[in-house]
Amino acid sequence: MGSSSTNPSSETLLKVGVVGFGPFAQFLSRTILKQGHLVTATSRSDHSRLCSELGITFYREMDQFCNANNDVILLCPSILSLSSVMQSLPSNRLEKGTLFVDVLSVKEHPRDLLLNVLPEECDVLCTHPMFGPESGKDGWNGLPLVFDKVRIRNESLCMNFLSIFEKEGCRMVEMSCTEHDKLAARSQFLTHTIGRILSEMKIESTLMDTKGFQTLLQLRDNTMKDSLDLYCGLFKHNKFAKQELENLEGAFHSLKLKLQETQDAK
Amino acid sequence: MGSSSTNPSSETLLKVGVVGFGPFAQFLSRTILKQGHLVTATSRSDHSRLCSELGITFYREMDQFCNANNDVILLCPSILSLSSVMQSLPSNRLEKGTLFVDVLSVKEHPRDLLLNVLPEECDVLCTHPMFGPESGKDGWNGLPLVFDKVRIRNESLCMNFLSIFEKEGCRMVEMSCTEHDKLAARSQFLTHTIGRILSEMKIESTLMDTKGFQTLLQLRDNTMKDSLDLYCGLFKHNKFAKQELENLEGAFHSLKLKLQETQDAK
Ligand SMILES: NC(=O)c1ccc[n+]([C@@H]2O[C@H](COP(=O)([O-])OP(=O)(O)OC[C@H]3O[C@@H](n4cnc5c(N)ncnc54)[C@H](OP(=O)(O)O)[C@@H]3O)[C@@H](O)[C@H]2O)c1
Ligand SMILES: NC(=O)c1ccc[n+]([C@@H]2O[C@H](COP(=O)([O-])OP(=O)(O)OC[C@H]3O[C@@H](n4cnc5c(N)ncnc54)[C@H](OP(=O)(O)O)[C@@H]3O)[C@@H](O)[C@H]2O)c1
Repeated sequence: MGSSSTNPSSETLLKVGVVGFGPFAQFLSRTILKQGHLVTATSRSDHSRLCSELGITFYREMDQFCNANNDVILLCPSILSLSSVMQSLPSNRLEKGTLFVDVLSVKEHPRDLLLNVLPEECDVLCTHPMFGPESGKDGWNGLPLVFDKVRIRNESLCMNFLSIFEKEGCRMVEMSCTEHDKLAARSQFLTHTIGRILSEMKIESTLMDTKGFQTLLQLRDNTMKDSLDLYCGLFKHNKFAKQELENLEGAFHSLKLKLQETQDAK
Repeated sequence: MGSSSTNPSSETLLKVGVVGFGPFAQFLSRTILKQGHLVTATSRSDHSRLCSELGITFYREMDQFCNANNDVILLCPSILSLSSVMQSLPSNRLEKGTLFVDVLSVKEHPRDLLLNVLPEECDVLCTHPMFGPESGKDGWNGLPLVFDKVRIRNESLCMNFLSIFEKEGCRMVEMSCTEHDKLAARSQFLTHTIGRILSEMKIESTLMDTKGFQTLLQLRDNTMKDSLDLYCGLFKHNKFAKQELENLEGAFHSLKLKLQETQDAK
């Protein structure tokens, strides 16, 4: 284990092993590195080139990655692949006392998976940074970091990890995974849905855009920077999402009725 | 007639008579007054108190209003009421050479009505300022003013009126009423539709709003500041709006199919 278990001060440097080195993991890693922590990574695809540029040790083999003595394993795969990624972890090789953190945009699903798959000795922290490469490009100050201390025995290690976000000025929001999923279905999932509907419609800037329409174009662009896997994961692994899709449909329906009434009047 | 017909310089002050003194007319009038023009008004409801505060002569009777020697009659009623408002104009009392301007958010409908109802001697300018009390609250600089010179003989009077917007820095966009309606259905009407769907859904700010969700809350709030009449008018009197509503429904449907596919996978 790294130094965190012996020196739990806020200046403790952590060894963070990232699993799944996609766009969001890359974005997070830059800030984690900037704070002086050590980062290693493994992923389905070969990211060794980018990693060596950033100063990250990249392991093609999961076994080697697991031998690297990480304090924290940061799980950043797509929502849809977390289950298979967890199955690929050699659970007999995992260090006791390692803190497992996930950053998935849904929370009940990774909570259940991590509690199921990981040995009892591993701590589990579920998080969702409510921002990404686009909305967080000018820093994380004031942006929400949602977290649930699902199974924490080593409090100081957990606090050391969370302080990465605190130091950047994140608003720290502790809530249950269930509460997160309920709220996220009505906010984030809905936002992505509207961005993707607008993309399906192929809307385009005109000579006479209103400010409102410009914000929709921007929303469409930002949404489409995230992968379709991410969006499908928001739906498939958040049990509240289906209801919000129905609510959206219902709201559309009642608005159409209102229009129909004016149409029929006179 | 006022001074514009004798002195067509850009400094000409106009006598502008406003018909329909609702929120948008009030918003426009403040800037027209600021530029030194004379403003009179008439409306279904009694706005005499606000008018006297602003320095506007308010006529309860349409007949008196029509005797006030206006250079320009600025039509600002709701889209749904324009037809009945036009019928209430005493067409035998209208001054020859008066410039009629409408500001409705649809354009084919007022064009057809004005050409039908007004005497041949009246000029007709159809405009749509693509902004309102909210988006234009910090000035009109860079905001689009769409216009169509439908029947203009007195060019200088028309230019004098348009220069009100030019002076504020508006982007002047000349296009046919039909082209306007086509584009506006795909941009402004769509934006209002999404704002109103979100309102029907009763979305609310959470502890963990993403930036994208915050822009949707803002869009909802701005949309709901406009009247339901305005929204219904956008639909009822723009022949392209129905198709865009169907496009929105179609896009929603194909997105749901994509989600269904992931749901069914494995
Ligand atoms: N983007 C954001 O703004 C944001 C914000 C907060 C949280 N998150 C969460 O962060 C995670 C990563 O998001 P992302 O934006 O980087 O894109 P993503 O498309 O959700 O995930 C991409 C990552 O998943 C891995 N992956 C995909 N399919 C895989 C499979 N079948 N087997 C193994 N690995 C697989 C990719 O590995 P390779 O690169 O090796 O192919 C890559 O590391 C997601 O859980 C997302 O919900 C994202
Ligand atoms: N709001 C904007 O941002 C914006 C931007 C560009 C263009 N426009 C256009 O400007 C016009 C006015 O819009 P608005 O926002 O002020 O609100 P609106 O609800 O569209 O129209 C309100 C105006 O319509 C009059 N009116 C409503 N029903 C009437 C009836 N049955 N008979 C006679 N008059 C009636 C009202 O008169 P009283 O006040 O006397 O009751 C008031 O003057 C609309 O055509 C709209 O499309 C609005």
